[in-house]
Amino acid sequence: AMAGWGWARTVRGLLLDISGVLYDSGADGGVPIAGSAEAVRRIKASGLKLQLCTNETQATRENFVRKLQGLGFDISVAEVTAPAPAACRLLKERGLTPHLLVHDDLVSEFAELDKTNPNCVVLGDAAENFTYANLNEAFRLLIGMEKPVLISLGKGRYYKETDGLKLDVGAYMKALEYACDVQAEVVGKPAKSFFESALAELGVPPEQAIMIGDDIVNDVGGAQQCGMRALQVRTGKYRPSDENHPKVKPDAYVNNLAEAVDIILQQL
Amino acid sequence: AMAGWGWARTVRGLLLDISGVLYDSGADGGVPIAGSAEAVRRIKASGLKLQLCTNETQATRENFVRKLQGLGFDISVAEVTAPAPAACRLLKERGLTPHLLVHDDLVSEFAELDKTNPNCVVLGDAAENFTYANLNEAFRLLIGMEKPVLISLGKGRYYKETDGLKLDVGAYMKALEYACDVQAEVVGKPAKSFFESALAELGVPPEQAIMIGDDIVNDVGGAQQCGMRALQVRTGKYRPSDENHPKVKPDAYVNNLAEAVDIILQQL
Repeated sequence: AMAGWGWARTVRGLLLDISGVLYDSGADGGVPIAGSAEAVRRIKASGLKLQLCTNETQATRENFVRKLQGLGFDISVAEVTAPAPAACRLLKERGLTPHLLVHDDLVSEFAELDKTNPNCVVLGDAAENFTYANLNEAFRLLIGMEKPVLISLGKGRYYKETDGLKLDVGAYMKALEYACDVQAEVVGKPAKSFFESALAELGVPPEQAIMIGDDIVNDVGGAQQCGMRALQVRTGKYRPSDENHPKVKPDAYVNNLAEAVDIILQQL
Repeated sequence: AMAGWGWARTVRGLLLDISGVLYDSGADGGVPIAGSAEAVRRIKASGLKLQLCTNETQATRENFVRKLQGLGFDISVAEVTAPAPAACRLLKERGLTPHLLVHDDLVSEFAELDKTNPNCVVLGDAAENFTYANLNEAFRLLIGMEKPVLISLGKGRYYKETDGLKLDVGAYMKALEYACDVQAEVVGKPAKSFFESALAELGVPPEQAIMIGDDIVNDVGGAQQCGMRALQVRTGKYRPSDENHPKVKPDAYVNNLAEAVDIILQQL
């Protein structure tokens, strides 16, 4: 299992996806994936730098981190790179006033922004807020804009919760893109600028960083596009058919985060 | 206005879209477009053949025709080509057992079909049935199939109701296509086989038929692909920007169905 891991000897930092790597999310708050909390502690004890890079948009970063701490993870808000704060910066820079179609618990991330007379739509994983009425409202606002601007917090296809697979924000993004004949701007993985922000927070150049995630396209493909190595875990939304993906091949597969950390630490 | 209509002299039959041409739909049952009921009567009196070709899937063909008769239109069930009966034939031919994500009022069109252990998903304009829960259910069934089969009753982007624009089935089709990495099979306009069925019922070859619709892609583009001439009315979902469509150009624009019939009958 350790043959072919020579490249891991120069690693100085790890970027970890959260959902499907640290824990499986769910309406009940979710459950940790076996060995993951201990793996995070081992990374920190090893002296490797650590940053979490998530597309989670069902909660503010503060509440999300609090939940993960409650599940036994030793992580802080500053260690999490998430789409909503990045989108907030982008909206401010461009003077955009958003209409939000997001989860109720995410709304406060955008508290500082003016939302009157919206000139763009921000789409997150709105979950139960993905109603027929809300989708029609977002659509009507977009189609009524002279130049529709749709900002999507990630473009995931689906994710796994404890009660089964759920459609992710990317599916709804595609619906609005098609209806309005626009292309969304994605803030979150796999956007290069988002990985670059996470690497800047990690403080390590891409060739000395490894991304570990369960999503073949958004984690593995996105990180590799930035010049990083990337591992796919066989937890979370991983499916055996991912191993035949026509375009993306991870640098290695691991059964879970604990195994990845075992192997990486053995190379150092 | 009549220059350049010489080709209309050989016309023997008309295919008419319904929503946005005969009437504007809405929760209140909808309202006829001025002059359209009279235009239908004039077509019939002229001896031209007439067939209605709709992507309507919010009601059975029987109930839809009854509603239109109530709005003053002299039409019968046999004069309407609609996606649900066509999909039903296709499902039977291929021995498919559908999971339906359609409007409640359409379900009875599929009464004859076995629906246990579904091996395909049939998507119509489900309107209020486009809930988060129903979309997740359809998604989970598809992603769980060895070879997912998604059949979409039309692929319209949006349509106009009396209270505003609504997302059409095509937007939800795109969401499921993306999430499951499949390509839907479209039964309805603009599919060539659907126009061919309508022409067969009209009993006129494509070069002697004219399609009249409000949808630049699904009505005009689809009919032209079949070798028909096609007019776009400036009613229903028509928007001025349609006149700059990068790929589709109607053979002529008309303000409404009544004007189209006026001009066509003058050529004969």
